[in-house]
Amino acid sequence: MGFCLQSSGVVVRHKSLKSSLLFPRNQVVNTIIRKQRLPRPKFSMCNTMKEKLEKSSILPFPIMINGCTGKMGRAVAEAAVSVGLQLIPKSFSSSEKSGEIVQLCGTNIQLHGPSEREGVLSSVIDQHPNVIVVDYTVPSTVNESVELYCKIGVPFVMGTSGGDREAMFETVQDAKVYAVISPQMGKQVVAFLAALEIMGEEFPGTFSGYSLEVMESHQASKVDTSGTVKEVISCFRKLGVSFELDQIQKIRDPKTQLEMVGVPEEHLSGHAFHRYHLTSPDQTVSFEFQHNVCGRSIYAQGTVDAAIFLATKVQSKAEKRIYNMIDVLREGNMR
Amino acid sequence: MGFCLQSSGVVVRHKSLKSSLLFPRNQVVNTIIRKQRLPRPKFSMCNTMKEKLEKSSILPFPIMINGCTGKMGRAVAEAAVSVGLQLIPKSFSSSEKSGEIVQLCGTNIQLHGPSEREGVLSSVIDQHPNVIVVDYTVPSTVNESVELYCKIGVPFVMGTSGGDREAMFETVQDAKVYAVISPQMGKQVVAFLAALEIMGEEFPGTFSGYSLEVMESHQASKVDTSGTVKEVISCFRKLGVSFELDQIQKIRDPKTQLEMVGVPEEHLSGHAFHRYHLTSPDQTVSFEFQHNVCGRSIYAQGTVDAAIFLATKVQSKAEKRIYNMIDVLREGNMR
Repeated sequence: MGFCLQSSGVVVRHKSLKSSLLFPRNQVVNTIIRKQRLPRPKFSMCNTMKEKLEKSSILPFPIMINGCTGKMGRAVAEAAVSVGLQLIPKSFSSSEKSGEIVQLCGTNIQLHGPSEREGVLSSVIDQHPNVIVVDYTVPSTVNESVELYCKIGVPFVMGTSGGDREAMFETVQDAKVYAVISPQMGKQVVAFLAALEIMGEEFPGTFSGYSLEVMESHQASKVDTSGTVKEVISCFRKLGVSFELDQIQKIRDPKTQLEMVGVPEEHLSGHAFHRYHLTSPDQTVSFEFQHNVCGRSIYAQGTVDAAIFLATKVQSKAEKRIYNMIDVLREGNMR
Repeated sequence: MGFCLQSSGVVVRHKSLKSSLLFPRNQVVNTIIRKQRLPRPKFSMCNTMKEKLEKSSILPFPIMINGCTGKMGRAVAEAAVSVGLQLIPKSFSSSEKSGEIVQLCGTNIQLHGPSEREGVLSSVIDQHPNVIVVDYTVPSTVNESVELYCKIGVPFVMGTSGGDREAMFETVQDAKVYAVISPQMGKQVVAFLAALEIMGEEFPGTFSGYSLEVMESHQASKVDTSGTVKEVISCFRKLGVSFELDQIQKIRDPKTQLEMVGVPEEHLSGHAFHRYHLTSPDQTVSFEFQHNVCGRSIYAQGTVDAAIFLATKVQSKAEKRIYNMIDVLREGNMR
């Protein structure tokens, strides 16, 4: 028995859980249907990836970062260069910035507005047939960009959220272009969400009667409620908890964040703190989950992992073309 | 590095360097959140179960609680009676207590020492062929008891931990007796552990390079390290975290529990608080998980759910005979 979970383009395929470490091995552990895995590495993500890069024939491959003047674009450039990827000196930008040159990690990057994009991308792929594009542009033009990637046939990692996602998937499916598409690039957050989703699917109602409190704190410029929080709450609902989105305690005031939430001052302008607290009906049991991110390095590292993952899929001519971060996690670059 | 933690209406104060990523002033945050406490759920677990009981043809069935003078036995008796189960007025006890009568939930229970057990159990099953036995006795005699349950052919829920588990499973398998066997009856804790286990199996190495801090607090009489903590750490290891058991911060001092961990005074003699804190190599990301249990009601309720689950399996003549709490969760009584 298997099932499929979907969450913002995240798909989990999971065979029936027949095990818990809690239970005697003779009963369960051997019945888990899992791929045999090699022993875990003991070293850190970067070292692991570096070793993989050095050993792999796909590397160092070139990477083109569209939207490289934005905060995420810059963070990805740094993470990419730090693992030895080659930065393409061209990037898509708004028409206002077109023609400008910006320096990123020692490379001068020429910015190209919408009218130049097709010509630029064609020349890039001519010179660098193994290029991977990373997109951290803006929701308003993301569908146009995807259409272009598909027309030219360049594999891409989509880090930009928003736009018409359904149309995006359709475009990519029709073009059979390789892509990793995910609104959440933080691998650890994705893994946490996937685990919660599995819990909700496998054990619905486990937390029936429990009350839930949710707090999320983000930079003041973020007006809307955290999408991740919405996903988590949807899982808790499956677990039997009754909760409405307007019950979320949303913190956007920097003073409160600094003094009460404990966000470091340097990260007031970019953080994502989340806290979920469950209490049993008789108040004797509580569960708490927190995931707190400062800055963008977790997303940048996840994006680079996604790019490396995608390069291996292109090289191996994998049948499957569209991936998400669950796929990246599962076949992970970190092992 | 240090932290203190309060739960169930409680507070966390983090003093470590990494604590800036958490909610170091959680006390204030908690206060804010708690002031806005949400309406209590419309129904409790017990009500849900009661409704199910009323609708079900298997109920009310009789339940025999062996070890009913212990704290868990008493808690299960209360939980069982509260959902309408019929308490059998006989219970296995030590030879010292044999012959005594104890009152539980308004029922006088006759205690029977080892020499009387077979005769007593035979007469119980003659009079109550649909009885379910719950065992909260002692590790030293648990295998003998299981042999007897199997000889007589009575379905049972095994809440007693310890004993020779491998032999126990063999005995039950050979006898084809229906049983739920689990050393952890807290359904929500089991679900949390199962989710972590899935994460470890599906996404090994996701937390590579992360550092882990673990705190567990239990009543002073508990000498050994929490088994649940060991299971959780084993999952984190699969997720790529390097951690040795001697790094666990084990708290057994009641004063510390009261003042720093935040255990309510009335639960100093029976609680299980757990906190796991993960920090990324660059200190920008942290995850925290807590599960805090006061008293025994979560285990007692889980045991009663297991008994109800087992009664349905017996009634439907299910092919599978031996179950664990994952099975109970999956087919849950609470939905």
